Amino acid sequence: MNKDIERKLVAILEILNNYTEPVGANTISKKLVEKGIELSERAVRYHLKIMDERGLTKVAGKKGRIITEKGREEIKKALVADKLGFIISKILNLAYQVNLDKDGKGNVILNLSIINKKDLKKSLQIIKEILKKGYGISEKIIIFDKEEEEIAPGIIVPEKKVIVGTVCSVTIHGILLKRGIPLDAKFGGVLEVKNHEPVRFLEAINYNGSTLDPLEVFIKSRMTSILSVVKNGEGKVLATFRELPNMARDDTEKVIEEIRDLGIKAKIYLGKPNQELFGIPVTQGSTGLVIIGGLNPLAGVIESNIEAENEAMSILYKYEDLVPIKDVIN
Amino acid sequence: MNKDIERKLVAILEILNNYTEPVGANTISKKLVEKGIELSERAVRYHLKIMDERGLTKVAGKKGRIITEKGREEIKKALVADKLGFIISKILNLAYQVNLDKDGKGNVILNLSIINKKDLKKSLQIIKEILKKGYGISEKIIIFDKEEEEIAPGIIVPEKKVIVGTVCSVTIHGILLKRGIPLDAKFGGVLEVKNHEPVRFLEAINYNGSTLDPLEVFIKSRMTSILSVVKNGEGKVLATFRELPNMARDDTEKVIEEIRDLGIKAKIYLGKPNQELFGIPVTQGSTGLVIIGGLNPLAGVIESNIEAENEAMSILYKYEDLVPIKDVIN
Repeated sequence: MNKDIERKLVAILEILNNYTEPVGANTISKKLVEKGIELSERAVRYHLKIMDERGLTKVAGKKGRIITEKGREEIKKALVADKLGFIISKILNLAYQVNLDKDGKGNVILNLSIINKKDLKKSLQIIKEILKKGYGISEKIIIFDKEEEEIAPGIIVPEKKVIVGTVCSVTIHGILLKRGIPLDAKFGGVLEVKNHEPVRFLEAINYNGSTLDPLEVFIKSRMTSILSVVKNGEGKVLATFRELPNMARDDTEKVIEEIRDLGIKAKIYLGKPNQELFGIPVTQGSTGLVIIGGLNPLAGVIESNIEAENEAMSILYKYEDLVPIKDVIN
Repeated sequence: MNKDIERKLVAILEILNNYTEPVGANTISKKLVEKGIELSERAVRYHLKIMDERGLTKVAGKKGRIITEKGREEIKKALVADKLGFIISKILNLAYQVNLDKDGKGNVILNLSIINKKDLKKSLQIIKEILKKGYGISEKIIIFDKEEEEIAPGIIVPEKKVIVGTVCSVTIHGILLKRGIPLDAKFGGVLEVKNHEPVRFLEAINYNGSTLDPLEVFIKSRMTSILSVVKNGEGKVLATFRELPNMARDDTEKVIEEIRDLGIKAKIYLGKPNQELFGIPVTQGSTGLVIIGGLNPLAGVIESNIEAENEAMSILYKYEDLVPIKDVIN
């Protein structure tokens, strides 16, 4: 199929996917404009008919269309050409929506992990130990344990499972952005730790060269040894690499200090202007910024041979609604 | 440590790693020049002393130094900054050394897979089925089943294991290169197959944005369903994406025809000039070339829950010394 049409169809599906009730061609046409696609109501109706035939959408009452399961699948598989670099745009779009204020109120980004209910207690124990050492973003987490509950559009707690939400490192990107500090997100990688200190990056996958979140990939490929890092100070942890303008270095340092009061205990390393950080050279005029991966606690769960399905950068959630992990398990 | 010195040390280690016997400072100094590093014999000796102290090398008789196990580890962990883009340079260096001629003689590149001896028969059955359908490069393979045998420098058949060598898709890159066709290796990805035909790429990791081989990553992350593709013509397979100049398109087609006589049954898809191929747009003036991943048969082994450790693009090996898989298992 023509790529241009394909892109329009995917855009329509994405709009429908944001609604639980049926949506009409008029609304879709308006929403498309927000996505930079100009399509008349009539043209939208034409496309919807094609999508009905392909089983991607269906008529629901007089009011409009809803997306089908097949339609949802289609979104996921949308043109890879558009998805290459997808992870970087996901980071930027989410970071932009973070609005955590100095009082600890506002939206942060959560990683979501689906765990078997029976493994919850053991998993939390592991997560707690790792967070305590700063190998995660915040000691505040959330547990969704009501089966069948829809915690966000399309995200439902499966039977006999719980969903654990932990703060994602992109949250810090978002906080810095809100203070006017521009960040260039470079890559997610595996960082070697010796004597409790990071030494150098061992592996890296660029955000703009991958359709997959690098940290999810490293966890699935079993390339971490966070348990050993927490226990002996030696091993491999997940971390992300960013660059910021040298002029913004002092402000960045200040912001990082401030967020400590909000229970954000994450290990964060700010390089020196123009100097390499953990073996990674920076662009002239820039300073390196390494933030420990928010998924490290879940890497520890996987290392313990507990099944967990992790999705990085999953949803926005109010930070004030999270609870300190020490209040959940002792 | 100073990055420049670090790089020199790693270069010296790499030289020592290519020898089984002890090597003197004189030889090392000469070999360094080939790597673009100017270092006097005396300077080399100075560095060797440092490396002895760090346990990376050791004196072996009067003749020189050998590399230690720790030294080998060091090479693996060498500066990620140098490794970013490492996979792409590995591809180019290996492709350059392919010299398979029209009579089926000469070096090809092998992927090596370590499998438990007890799983060999079942694994070969799976590999055979997948190769028969063209979801691998060649139906010729090799089995190293002599325990403790060193099949290439540093690669030893472990106890109770066998190593299976299958032809790597970079071999085809090399064959085309020998005919003067320049290829730009873009990415390794997951390709969706429907009704026995590829439809579009679902995931991709750029070769120049990763320290890891993308296809190894996709296998470890269990993102393939090659068994289903072979059985029902529907599923996900590993494939690589390259570009070539439109002017070289006809010659490329001819070469692909020719190598069919050598038992190279790989599915290869040549796009149309300037046109996208399986959802991936090409640079203006170029044609897309998709070669099925040489590791698909091993992805099938992993999908069958048989343990296998795969290393893509592992060694160069004489094609005439491989044997048709049908002669190994029926």
